Amino acid sequence: MAFKTVRGMQDFLPERAAKKKWIEDTCRRIFESYDFVPLETPIVEEFGLLAKKGSGGEAIREEIYYFKDKSGRELGLRFDLTVPLARVVATNPQLARPFKRYAIGRVYRYDRPQQKRWREFTQADWDILGSSSLLADFEIIAVAIDVMRELGFKDSEFKVNVNSRKLLEEIALCCGVKKTKVVECFRCLDKLEKIGKGEVEKELKEKGIDTQILGQLEIKKLEQLKVKNSAPLRELQQLMWLLKKNGLEKLVEIDLSLARGLEYYTGIVYEIKLKDGPSVGGGGRYDKLVEAYGGRPTPAVGCSFGIERLLDSLEEGLKLEAKTKVFVIPVGEKAVEPCVKIAAKIRKLGIGCELDLMNRGIGKNIQYADKKGIPFVAIIGEKELGGEVLTLKNLKTGKQRKVKLKDLPAIGKIVEQK
Amino acid sequence: MAFKTVRGMQDFLPERAAKKKWIEDTCRRIFESYDFVPLETPIVEEFGLLAKKGSGGEAIREEIYYFKDKSGRELGLRFDLTVPLARVVATNPQLARPFKRYAIGRVYRYDRPQQKRWREFTQADWDILGSSSLLADFEIIAVAIDVMRELGFKDSEFKVNVNSRKLLEEIALCCGVKKTKVVECFRCLDKLEKIGKGEVEKELKEKGIDTQILGQLEIKKLEQLKVKNSAPLRELQQLMWLLKKNGLEKLVEIDLSLARGLEYYTGIVYEIKLKDGPSVGGGGRYDKLVEAYGGRPTPAVGCSFGIERLLDSLEEGLKLEAKTKVFVIPVGEKAVEPCVKIAAKIRKLGIGCELDLMNRGIGKNIQYADKKGIPFVAIIGEKELGGEVLTLKNLKTGKQRKVKLKDLPAIGKIVEQK
Repeated sequence: MAFKTVRGMQDFLPERAAKKKWIEDTCRRIFESYDFVPLETPIVEEFGLLAKKGSGGEAIREEIYYFKDKSGRELGLRFDLTVPLARVVATNPQLARPFKRYAIGRVYRYDRPQQKRWREFTQADWDILGSSSLLADFEIIAVAIDVMRELGFKDSEFKVNVNSRKLLEEIALCCGVKKTKVVECFRCLDKLEKIGKGEVEKELKEKGIDTQILGQLEIKKLEQLKVKNSAPLRELQQLMWLLKKNGLEKLVEIDLSLARGLEYYTGIVYEIKLKDGPSVGGGGRYDKLVEAYGGRPTPAVGCSFGIERLLDSLEEGLKLEAKTKVFVIPVGEKAVEPCVKIAAKIRKLGIGCELDLMNRGIGKNIQYADKKGIPFVAIIGEKELGGEVLTLKNLKTGKQRKVKLKDLPAIGKIVEQK
Repeated sequence: MAFKTVRGMQDFLPERAAKKKWIEDTCRRIFESYDFVPLETPIVEEFGLLAKKGSGGEAIREEIYYFKDKSGRELGLRFDLTVPLARVVATNPQLARPFKRYAIGRVYRYDRPQQKRWREFTQADWDILGSSSLLADFEIIAVAIDVMRELGFKDSEFKVNVNSRKLLEEIALCCGVKKTKVVECFRCLDKLEKIGKGEVEKELKEKGIDTQILGQLEIKKLEQLKVKNSAPLRELQQLMWLLKKNGLEKLVEIDLSLARGLEYYTGIVYEIKLKDGPSVGGGGRYDKLVEAYGGRPTPAVGCSFGIERLLDSLEEGLKLEAKTKVFVIPVGEKAVEPCVKIAAKIRKLGIGCELDLMNRGIGKNIQYADKKGIPFVAIIGEKELGGEVLTLKNLKTGKQRKVKLKDLPAIGKIVEQK
């Protein structure tokens, strides 16, 4: 009889939902400060869109929620926010360039549910379409760092790992990997963190791929690479210079083994990682995707945060202030109607206010308000009504004072004192 | 080759998406000022939950997106936010009462797509669970009115139609409708606005239902009803008295023909209607729903706005200010890196700022900024760099002035002058 959430999906009860919203609001505020604008697309998309080569591919059918509607249309729940973005840009050539959009929305994967791995989760994405400038790559990374800092992470608590897919390709070729084997080689390298160097080496050998590359990928200083004076190398160096000029170099580290799974990346890629913790976001340049969806050639770069990942790591330490500052308690039947009016007036002052709807006694009401973290209660009984006042009690200090009903704005000042 | 949105679903391009978000933000601000707290539930639910008797019923299968996942689980996309709320409250007995929650989220109906009728749309819901007090019904209506006013609707532009399901039942019985025919009778009455009195009268007759009731439903003053001195009548009168005491009576009108389709309503019901326009929201009391989902008896009352309906009627008149106040234009290669820093500093002042990422000339950049409604451009070339200043140009007046780079906070003052 007891109903549950669908396997791999979760409810966010109020306290957690408020923290999740605070994280999303913080992302949005930073995105908007850089002039990213919102875009909303449906959660349901045509399966053909999701399964297009270059993004999901036909194999995606097994990894997503796929179904047919009553007219036999093949549909699916979106697995990211990038593919719908590519569709919108491909089919709306009137959009001014650069098109800087953000989106915060739910996406779906039909993974095997695991600890901290959900079938429904929320992504916050920001992308710049139409600019091939390295400044765009830089700005996307700068936004990621701004968001992390605004969320309260210290600089010592996270870092951004950066690489270049093009440089990685040159290193591979330079290390004897055949051009036809490069994609396969990347897929192996992507597992480095998960299965370790030994296993990756074994896998590369089995596939007949030269393993020299593994040594090159451990290099931390670009000058020590075999590859010299190539365009992708210079680009990565220039990005690091820009980051340094802006005092961000300590947060950013080159990680030549970072390949990132998705096939659509074409240039610089990055991942935001918590120190000794999971990746909370990542992205890169994908200059061919809009074209793949029938649009005109459109350079593009973007990044995505996993909101649940951020929530998991922030939740415990995060204390949000109660939005409600005053709980109004009518004492006796006659006080109810005047209290409704008083509560409305307090709200008009911009002060969050809750009114007793349970007809409880003073003691129980104070208990309820205290448990919710509401700092003040306003008590109005016959005595107060006669004197045209209310009794305002500070639940932390226990102190109480009378406030004239004609002078309600005084409540604002009292409530805002810390 | 060109991909489209799924039939019955739509994209919200940035200008519209920003307006939609503004409406959602406004709802949320008012909800929170009354101490409603957020709850987030998955969009996918078990079909058994959606099809439960008393909410959707088995027939709902034809009206929703229904599908099986790869393990054969019967699932569906939620068709409202109330059924998931009932599930959460039924399965989380630890939640304190009253439980005042809001939710703003997407819901799905497999209707025949029509003008302004979408298969994916957004609802904003606010509900109070655990209070049987009429104050709760009143508060839900007060929130609806506050939201409408905050959205900019004048009092002359909307009204709230109110009725009581219990009173309607008494009127029906009093007019000779048999108890076994009451539900059927309500279903006919629900069509009054759509097909008119004549057609409804015909339908009632065909079903063998007494048509006297139609006359009673046109009564606007409760004292004129045949039904006298009944509890539901007194309740409705008391609600009107409370509304009057709070100066809201002009916005609220009794409409005895309002039945509202959903079977789960048990008491007062209402609808928010635009003058000569569509309903933009509605709700009522549903005291039996949580119990139907296996929870303990829980009186409940709530309401829901249709965000797209509000957007359709507000969109044209709504002018949102550009969040970006300054567009930074580097002139020449050398200015680029300093401009990145200047833009970052302006953002740190809390001023939305965009930087040229296209390496365009001054003229084209000004054109782009102006088109986006950005009020100021900051120009930095070699001359400016030499003098450690930037040129700040007001795009509306055409006036420009120099601002010292050391005195960037001055930009804040200039930008905020209207």
